Amino acid sequence: MFYFIIDILGTIAFAISGVLVAMDKKLDVFGVLIVAFVTAVGGGTLRDILIGSKPVGWLHAPMHLLIIVATVILVIIFMNRMKYVLKTLFLFDAIGIGLYTMVGIEKGLAADLSPIMCIVLGTITACFGGVIRDILCNEIPVIFNKEIYATVCITGGLVYFLLIQFPIDNTIAYSMAIVTIIIVRILAVRFKISLPNIYRQEM
Amino acid sequence: MFYFIIDILGTIAFAISGVLVAMDKKLDVFGVLIVAFVTAVGGGTLRDILIGSKPVGWLHAPMHLLIIVATVILVIIFMNRMKYVLKTLFLFDAIGIGLYTMVGIEKGLAADLSPIMCIVLGTITACFGGVIRDILCNEIPVIFNKEIYATVCITGGLVYFLLIQFPIDNTIAYSMAIVTIIIVRILAVRFKISLPNIYRQEM
Amino acid sequence: MFYFIIDILGTIAFAISGVLVAMDKKLDVFGVLIVAFVTAVGGGTLRDILIGSKPVGWLHAPMHLLIIVATVILVIIFMNRMKYVLKTLFLFDAIGIGLYTMVGIEKGLAADLSPIMCIVLGTITACFGGVIRDILCNEIPVIFNKEIYATVCITGGLVYFLLIQFPIDNTIAYSMAIVTIIIVRILAVRFKISLPNIYRQEM
Repeated sequence: MFYFIIDILGTIAFAISGVLVAMDKKLDVFGVLIVAFVTAVGGGTLRDILIGSKPVGWLHAPMHLLIIVATVILVIIFMNRMKYVLKTLFLFDAIGIGLYTMVGIEKGLAADLSPIMCIVLGTITACFGGVIRDILCNEIPVIFNKEIYATVCITGGLVYFLLIQFPIDNTIAYSMAIVTIIIVRILAVRFKISLPNIYRQEM
Repeated sequence: MFYFIIDILGTIAFAISGVLVAMDKKLDVFGVLIVAFVTAVGGGTLRDILIGSKPVGWLHAPMHLLIIVATVILVIIFMNRMKYVLKTLFLFDAIGIGLYTMVGIEKGLAADLSPIMCIVLGTITACFGGVIRDILCNEIPVIFNKEIYATVCITGGLVYFLLIQFPIDNTIAYSMAIVTIIIVRILAVRFKISLPNIYRQEM
Repeated sequence: MFYFIIDILGTIAFAISGVLVAMDKKLDVFGVLIVAFVTAVGGGTLRDILIGSKPVGWLHAPMHLLIIVATVILVIIFMNRMKYVLKTLFLFDAIGIGLYTMVGIEKGLAADLSPIMCIVLGTITACFGGVIRDILCNEIPVIFNKEIYATVCITGGLVYFLLIQFPIDNTIAYSMAIVTIIIVRILAVRFKISLPNIYRQEM
């Protein structure tokens, strides 16, 4: 039940981030809806395609589609009051990447993958919805050069695989990894931490 | 046989739209061919990947590839006379999206998906070739903010699932849905109907 | 063993080409890593998804990931001396596309595909890592209008299927196809051969 609520909140947060980027590009109603949908389900879809689970999850779970459609409609109606929502949105988003990272890691474990590949899958689940969103909107993905996002997911994954080396209940390790992701993400944004940009000096 | 001819005409129409966009970007012969191919088969490919049908359809049907290569060669040779073809092209294109929408819906039904997901798959089949075409050419997909395209597919899908509630022969419902898509598409272009663009006022 | 070494050299060459493009876009460390990874494994991943082999190869072979991470770190450290490496890099790259084309053709044969589709798969394996790299970096793929790349792979594939019509050992045909690709690629770059660009005159 707890899992279910967080999944919905995460979906809403991801969909809203899609709507906001799509609006900046002045897409039409349908374009906004597609971008919101892809942002919310794109990471999990790519993960399922890579693992080869068939068919992709959301095809059998129309709930996500309905939530995303409702979110898009509400954002469009209330868009001028969105600034009051943005702070809360950021929290949902942090919770969402925490949860989705661990969902991806779980799916990787279920598919008998090594810890390192599980962390890759968790990161893809949490981050690649946003990557596809930015590609559809003709931008370089924001997580590639502005925001600490993937690094946070990797950190959470490492914490999880570290904790389960100890005699700790799996649920506790799982929850602590999610909490780690949420806290690191909030700290990174709060203190404007970012990774160094890489470019070549003149040769 | 009828189905077969429409499929070929649709493939040609989609391939030509790919060639035209690729030419605007001054791609080389091979780039033009790739973009034409992806425009023609991209939507169906994405649908097959999402459903998990393996392998993707065109790998066993070289006919599409040959038709697309022939189309690209003919367009390059006759490109200065293309304007006489463009009106006919638009009609093929409208027939193509009608047909492909219903092909996608059929595949969704065969995979036991709910009506809403079948409509999603039909829309992906008809529209995402064009989306991938525009991404490869570094443009925001035209169906996201300029053309009524996906909405037409969704309308056709709704008509189909409405009709089969009644004691009507499936073939008739199928055909009527295709005809609906063609007519709505022609009307939308004829009267320059478009969806409202969404953007935020200053906050 | 020989195959193994070439695979590693090819991976390194592809990863470095990813790093160089990502640096031009001033991505952060993580963005550079992702782009390098996608460039190196993207073509094979797309091939596996299209054939429907499950799961995608690299999920069970962490070696590639480790090599790519090491390559990225080394390039970042030594980036100001990269110009001494670039010539060697080009040779590795040529060897890489030769090898990957034939790996893709082999996978196509193993999946019972026709020669023409095997060549398509081989070309995808060798070229689409670079295509995805350029899309992620918000550029029109360089192989679409500047470089002879895919044409080289197709040539190699044709040579292979031509040779196996004769009573020649498969390994020899395989090796000669790779050598053909390497030589044609080097000649194309050496003599700045490119395909004609296609665009419409005023209509």
